[in-house]
Amino acid sequence: MSSDRTRRGWIKYGAALGGLFTGCSTEPHEQSEDEGINKLGKGVGLYGERSPEQKVARLLGTNKHPEASSSTTPLDSTMGIVTPAALHFERHHAGVPALSEKDHELLLHGLVDTPLVFSIADLKRLPSASQTYFLECAGNGGREWSEKVAVDVQSGFGLASCSEWTGVKLSTLLQEAGLKAGAQWFIAEGGDTCKMHRSLPIEKGLKDVLLAYGQNGEALRPEQGYPLRLIVPGWEGNVSVKWLRQIKVVAEPLASREETSKYTDMMPDGKARQYTFAMEAKSVITNPSGGHKLTKRGYVEISGLAWTGKGRIERVEVTTDGGKRWQQAKLQEPRLPMAFTRFRFDFHWSGEEATIASRAVDESGYVQPAREELLAVRGGNSHYHFNGVKLWRIAADGKVTHVEA
Amino acid sequence: MSSDRTRRGWIKYGAALGGLFTGCSTEPHEQSEDEGINKLGKGVGLYGERSPEQKVARLLGTNKHPEASSSTTPLDSTMGIVTPAALHFERHHAGVPALSEKDHELLLHGLVDTPLVFSIADLKRLPSASQTYFLECAGNGGREWSEKVAVDVQSGFGLASCSEWTGVKLSTLLQEAGLKAGAQWFIAEGGDTCKMHRSLPIEKGLKDVLLAYGQNGEALRPEQGYPLRLIVPGWEGNVSVKWLRQIKVVAEPLASREETSKYTDMMPDGKARQYTFAMEAKSVITNPSGGHKLTKRGYVEISGLAWTGKGRIERVEVTTDGGKRWQQAKLQEPRLPMAFTRFRFDFHWSGEEATIASRAVDESGYVQPAREELLAVRGGNSHYHFNGVKLWRIAADGKVTHVEA
Repeated sequence: MSSDRTRRGWIKYGAALGGLFTGCSTEPHEQSEDEGINKLGKGVGLYGERSPEQKVARLLGTNKHPEASSSTTPLDSTMGIVTPAALHFERHHAGVPALSEKDHELLLHGLVDTPLVFSIADLKRLPSASQTYFLECAGNGGREWSEKVAVDVQSGFGLASCSEWTGVKLSTLLQEAGLKAGAQWFIAEGGDTCKMHRSLPIEKGLKDVLLAYGQNGEALRPEQGYPLRLIVPGWEGNVSVKWLRQIKVVAEPLASREETSKYTDMMPDGKARQYTFAMEAKSVITNPSGGHKLTKRGYVEISGLAWTGKGRIERVEVTTDGGKRWQQAKLQEPRLPMAFTRFRFDFHWSGEEATIASRAVDESGYVQPAREELLAVRGGNSHYHFNGVKLWRIAADGKVTHVEA
Repeated sequence: MSSDRTRRGWIKYGAALGGLFTGCSTEPHEQSEDEGINKLGKGVGLYGERSPEQKVARLLGTNKHPEASSSTTPLDSTMGIVTPAALHFERHHAGVPALSEKDHELLLHGLVDTPLVFSIADLKRLPSASQTYFLECAGNGGREWSEKVAVDVQSGFGLASCSEWTGVKLSTLLQEAGLKAGAQWFIAEGGDTCKMHRSLPIEKGLKDVLLAYGQNGEALRPEQGYPLRLIVPGWEGNVSVKWLRQIKVVAEPLASREETSKYTDMMPDGKARQYTFAMEAKSVITNPSGGHKLTKRGYVEISGLAWTGKGRIERVEVTTDGGKRWQQAKLQEPRLPMAFTRFRFDFHWSGEEATIASRAVDESGYVQPAREELLAVRGGNSHYHFNGVKLWRIAADGKVTHVEA
């Protein structure tokens, strides 16, 4: 054990015998007594930045047009349940418009008694609300439908993020404008060049839809819809229209491009399901996951994220033997409805091959299905709404990879 | 009303008659149909930044040495309960050291069976925990002890912020090292030049103290202690030692500079209270607050923050008549222990002078005192732990100012 003692006789953590955690040592590192602490540091500052040595980043999609591409959240590097705004996933259809808060306006019209135009300042004077919600692109995990399943968690599942959103309830505006008879849907339109728009049921709009101007305590970031974004809790991300400029109350959905050619679910019988908005219960192990390597036997914290568009996560189960046995994970409290729930599971890795996975159960009792179960129902034509269980394999040498389909 | 209609016949929001919110209009603004939306926007990116037009910033303290100064969170511009890491308050004693995660180590020694040295990688392999906690400098609101009370909420109360922290429980490390008989306190020391250090009861260390490496989902920012910070929930911020490099378990507190000359409470009888760690229940209205101006009569959302080091906020009451009548505010759920709680109160401003304030009640039943009540007990020698009620005055012209003591 002498190599594990420094000059001053302290024991490197990994060399301490006994206890739960003996597997997780690093190589000894001799620390100079005054390392880095012999001069005054930097003074106070107006707006902080992260350490220059921190390089965690979104992964950019491979679409040749970066204006119509996506970027994914590094879910295996984020912690807790809040996604930093700077790392929130992106999916743009015509790039991020350079909008000004001062000039931006929201038009509310259609089947209302009084059509109204709101400035952002108008909206900020109305009763406000803040709530933590996940957003997930309907296409998140889409690679899992094919046999070429995702090799790592960021590229495969990183079109999901979670933030505390602040804004005005849409119901406040609808009540102010007054709904006319026959008002059953509303169309939300963005201020990007393609005027991205989606039809949504008025019932959802009256229930919990938010017009957000804030994310994680400050103004929305431009790529998240600055200065105004619709937030539709628990539903596919595409309907949370960014750069929101218009809400039109209507009797019927519009059946626009993003509701017909895209964002529909082709079933095995060749018919497409439309307006399948809610994201169903889902979870994924983020640590360890594809591309990682375990360096020591012994204690390993298995950790990941679970979420559901149908309320709260009730339970997450973890398997370390490829699905023979499922054990309950610990859930980070409080569990918020339609927000990420962090789960953690204590694992003792023996050094042998192990196949790990998680499955979520939401408060409705719905159980996240195995990939095969989902394929059996949905067939092989789907692009959206994959929520099957994701397996990772730990090899005897510690390398973690995806499990080929 | 014709001046409030645009060419296309929509009604500017403020001009809509009837309803709760008729007071909050802006001047009409003619919006061009294609304003800002006639070209492709910016593509996806690795790490987002805020809109260049957003200038919200910390306010820098006036200490002539920026390395031994503070900066305050703009509480009247933040939203919800999460403070963006970039706007979290600062209080440094010798500046922000430029530390490297790879080289940093934590020494745990003193009255333990096995002294241990941990790298950050070691700590990240241990069981992790995430929790949302406020941090508040003991000196926050200190200006209120004098007659020159704070003129605005940022300069007066901005030494308080709230984040989701992620790390390892100190109890995990203490259990691993093994406590010896007589282990009653521990000294936490930072990696800045002054080796900022504080003594803390081992009981608190075993209860809920966190060694945090994450804040709001990503690595700590340098000015918040990168790569490792002690987080002591609910207690004065100074004990949440940044750039943590050493924990020594001891029998008695050290009575060091920051525990004798500073961070003590001089009572009216000339005796100083030491080790008064917990922050008591407190609240402040952030909107509207000193320096703001109401532009219209009618609906005004009064909003603010409440917190207590003793658990959850149970209730917040708001007065709009200088304290004659107190009414219950709505509290943002979930109310988390030792975290910010956002409160909101619907106010109809008649256009006459009004004096507004909030008072918090925590789950122990403790009621935030009036400034005069606090002064009667604590006398005029105090610098720290002010938690009295803060009054703002709305003048007939809408200007909001502090109320002179």
